[in-house]
Amino acid sequence: MKISLAQLNYHIGNFEANTSKILEAVKNAKQDACDLVIFGELAITGYPPRDFLEFDDFIIQAEEYLQKIVTAADGIAIVIGAHSRNPVPEGKDLFNSVYFLENQEVKFVQHKTLLPTYDIFDEYRYFEPNTEFDVFEFQGKKIALTVCEDIWDIGNENPLYKVSPLDQMMLKKPDFIINVSASPFTYNHAKDRLGVIKANVNKYKIPLLYVNHVGAQTEIIFDGGSVVMAPNGTVFHEMNYFEEQQTSIELSAVMKSEKSSEQEKNKIALIHDAIVLGIKDYFNKLGFKKAIIGLSGGIDSALTCALAVRALGSDNVRGLLMPSQYSSDHSVADAVQLSKNLGIQYDIIEIKDIYKVVETQLKPIFKDLPFNVTEENIQARSRGLLLMAMSNKFGNILLNTSNKSEMAVGYGTLYGDLCGGLSVLADIYKTEVFALSRFVNKENVFIPINSIEKPPSAELRPNQKDSDSLPDYDILDQILFQYIEKQKGPKEIIKMGFDEKLVRRILRLVNINEFKRYQTAPALRVSNKAFGMGRRMPIVGKYLS
Amino acid sequence: MKISLAQLNYHIGNFEANTSKILEAVKNAKQDACDLVIFGELAITGYPPRDFLEFDDFIIQAEEYLQKIVTAADGIAIVIGAHSRNPVPEGKDLFNSVYFLENQEVKFVQHKTLLPTYDIFDEYRYFEPNTEFDVFEFQGKKIALTVCEDIWDIGNENPLYKVSPLDQMMLKKPDFIINVSASPFTYNHAKDRLGVIKANVNKYKIPLLYVNHVGAQTEIIFDGGSVVMAPNGTVFHEMNYFEEQQTSIELSAVMKSEKSSEQEKNKIALIHDAIVLGIKDYFNKLGFKKAIIGLSGGIDSALTCALAVRALGSDNVRGLLMPSQYSSDHSVADAVQLSKNLGIQYDIIEIKDIYKVVETQLKPIFKDLPFNVTEENIQARSRGLLLMAMSNKFGNILLNTSNKSEMAVGYGTLYGDLCGGLSVLADIYKTEVFALSRFVNKENVFIPINSIEKPPSAELRPNQKDSDSLPDYDILDQILFQYIEKQKGPKEIIKMGFDEKLVRRILRLVNINEFKRYQTAPALRVSNKAFGMGRRMPIVGKYLS
Repeated sequence: MKISLAQLNYHIGNFEANTSKILEAVKNAKQDACDLVIFGELAITGYPPRDFLEFDDFIIQAEEYLQKIVTAADGIAIVIGAHSRNPVPEGKDLFNSVYFLENQEVKFVQHKTLLPTYDIFDEYRYFEPNTEFDVFEFQGKKIALTVCEDIWDIGNENPLYKVSPLDQMMLKKPDFIINVSASPFTYNHAKDRLGVIKANVNKYKIPLLYVNHVGAQTEIIFDGGSVVMAPNGTVFHEMNYFEEQQTSIELSAVMKSEKSSEQEKNKIALIHDAIVLGIKDYFNKLGFKKAIIGLSGGIDSALTCALAVRALGSDNVRGLLMPSQYSSDHSVADAVQLSKNLGIQYDIIEIKDIYKVVETQLKPIFKDLPFNVTEENIQARSRGLLLMAMSNKFGNILLNTSNKSEMAVGYGTLYGDLCGGLSVLADIYKTEVFALSRFVNKENVFIPINSIEKPPSAELRPNQKDSDSLPDYDILDQILFQYIEKQKGPKEIIKMGFDEKLVRRILRLVNINEFKRYQTAPALRVSNKAFGMGRRMPIVGKYLS
Repeated sequence: MKISLAQLNYHIGNFEANTSKILEAVKNAKQDACDLVIFGELAITGYPPRDFLEFDDFIIQAEEYLQKIVTAADGIAIVIGAHSRNPVPEGKDLFNSVYFLENQEVKFVQHKTLLPTYDIFDEYRYFEPNTEFDVFEFQGKKIALTVCEDIWDIGNENPLYKVSPLDQMMLKKPDFIINVSASPFTYNHAKDRLGVIKANVNKYKIPLLYVNHVGAQTEIIFDGGSVVMAPNGTVFHEMNYFEEQQTSIELSAVMKSEKSSEQEKNKIALIHDAIVLGIKDYFNKLGFKKAIIGLSGGIDSALTCALAVRALGSDNVRGLLMPSQYSSDHSVADAVQLSKNLGIQYDIIEIKDIYKVVETQLKPIFKDLPFNVTEENIQARSRGLLLMAMSNKFGNILLNTSNKSEMAVGYGTLYGDLCGGLSVLADIYKTEVFALSRFVNKENVFIPINSIEKPPSAELRPNQKDSDSLPDYDILDQILFQYIEKQKGPKEIIKMGFDEKLVRRILRLVNINEFKRYQTAPALRVSNKAFGMGRRMPIVGKYLS
């Protein structure tokens, strides 16, 4: 049996584009003499369709497009993820299903059993969990059809679910497993995924063909990396990461394969590729081409700019330098150097005149009240105003440059440096920003060394340094990681050896700044706990604050 | 049996404050010679605790405080909602439970079966659904203990769940039902709730004692309205709305009660009281006292200001008038009149100088490009900058004044008039803004009649009117209501008689402005489909856009 795996970049709700991609891949597979072609989870709608699923009109459209794919199952069989209707009135109205299409008919539908409802996932919001299990026979082989999470609850001492779909399906003695997925990237996910696939194969001793999405949907980045695993637990084939790809494999070859062709994985390289794809797809899918970035001369904006140039091309990225009276000379010099290194257009607008007139206007009310965070924020917001004016006038989408360490402790000005349509680095800690910058500079120095090596500063008051009000980033980031990614409480973190007063102060800062994060741009997600839709915190909550 | 119902205003994560309120109510009930006192759902943590529930430290603290309440169950029994641990490894680790405490011991625990996971609710994210049903006998009476949603899936042709907890419990022949709830306000909810309680009582023919939360948690407002319903389906007692209250009832009196004491409900009055409580609790629970509002002379800012004064007192509300060169004379006059009517402090800062210097700074880049939305947004953002400067300097939280109609179609400037810590009107359509303004003016004219009657305008260019780019609000709001609240697609809305081109344009505007709403303040929720956490839409989604 020759099987084609189609790892495609879908666009949520774009039925027309998704369906024509799918039909194109069906055609390719037929030309390649395949018996079967496999797509990802909820391929017609894209993933996650979120509350679009609550619109009948959306559901009906998705079904009309599914029908076109059924019609294309002619001379080839198709396995594809799509919703289906719950035939009984009790329970939610939809299932998240995988279809087996053959001879222009729906031959078999298996519903998803395990509905991830944690982090960024909300599947129980929309779908009824499956309770019936079967396999489907095709060309003399029995196939266990599963959807994404169905294979993930394995080998845990504390399983998240009460049922194991594959344990149930094994009663029917399938010959191999197909998993249609929409499994998003985190920098550990490719490894974790291979581990999970291997755990299933080792347990059930049959091949597993895993087909993922690729491409970004706002903050969520699908990394691809679809896999065919041989019954002995070796990787028969691992598809590309961060790229659309279609590959054919011969099932009989998988059955007897012995050598592993697993790819090397490097955390920083994966993050780099994920972010570049994330930027690219945000622009492509929204129909934009051009970005603008406020360049401070610091490392965050420099890295954001370098990544944007890789995603969009230097012609489509524009820099704006906005020095204030507190900016050091090197700030402008470093930002100019960066722009030249990257070959992008840049402009310089000093903000001191705007700052002065705002100060003058407020003087009758502020009188002689001392300089404080207000005046710092006025500078940051003047920059936000100028960047958004440029964005509005020229149609360049503003990219936000804040990193995860800053976002965590609220070190940033709402409506100022927190402006932007997309946050590029907000899931990347400052220590990782340094590593990623060095990675970007590996072959050529794009980011000026001075931007990487000088002490970080917001330059909103004389001689300000980040270290005036924050601990060293290597300490800060460790504490933040334990609290945000590991969900450790203060006692556990203190027990690890960090200073008690510091830990309590940092955790308090994280919690009292929930209101800021509520109003910031979606952030490209690269960790297993990013700010945004996957981390849902009360604003008026009093815990640790 | 004498039973006390304690309808309290909890604060998420504020274990100390919540527990001392609960203990105080236990004391009151004992002094009132009650046998039993009933609290709401997840009373110790407040509702919804959201992802705080993923922190072991948070869970352990909640359990320590529960222990204090167990100790107080001395000479009185206590029914209270709190999490409990799932004793088996399979499934989620927590249940959402109701406890029966007596003689300083946990005598009985019933877990919640139906876990709402729609709109603002995420309970399956945290909790394992119950599958075992029992009743508890106290003083010769068998009690069916339920948690919120457990009583709601009744009388639907298309039930959301597969099990009915009360159907199961009825096999044990309980004498009455207790429901501990955290059931948030919408303007239809009080009526719906009484309908649901009645449907249960009519079906099971035994009394139902329903205890709700009161008070706001950021956007979610709990309205109280706890109810005791007699076996014949009449309201024996309905507690106050939007107020903490503790009431005692005699169960034998409930059993034989015949006359209904149901309160009148008026949509606009309910919204009014909900919003006032929403503002008050946002400030109280975050430890703030003072608000600032940008006053344009228009109806939205006038209404927001009047409601803020009711919530916080006139001494704690400050207005800022920021006329531009395009502002009409009446704008300032109306805003001044409003400030005087409400007795609040106000200042005037003209924005033309700021606007001029920004224009000058951008001139070398913008050259002779024509005036467009860029310049409109510069004005709006200059105002945002000034309001936030006032907010930072004086500690007044900025209240956002955008209404739901504007938020829906993106008629507002990000980082400009969309600034603010809390959105007061963002779940209230413009047509409802008019009705609410007239309601506020019922006894005294607080909001100048001219602000209500003049044609709405953003005044960002000469002679601009909302009606230049939007249809009349009574048409617009009907279309928006069908799309947002009723989740009708374009075909269905057009079939209702609205112009096809207009419908498609409006729905497109709603969808392409998702990115703006993503970055705006939490909005006090009064409808059954508010923007924010209860409406989760893709930003890069292509549906109808």
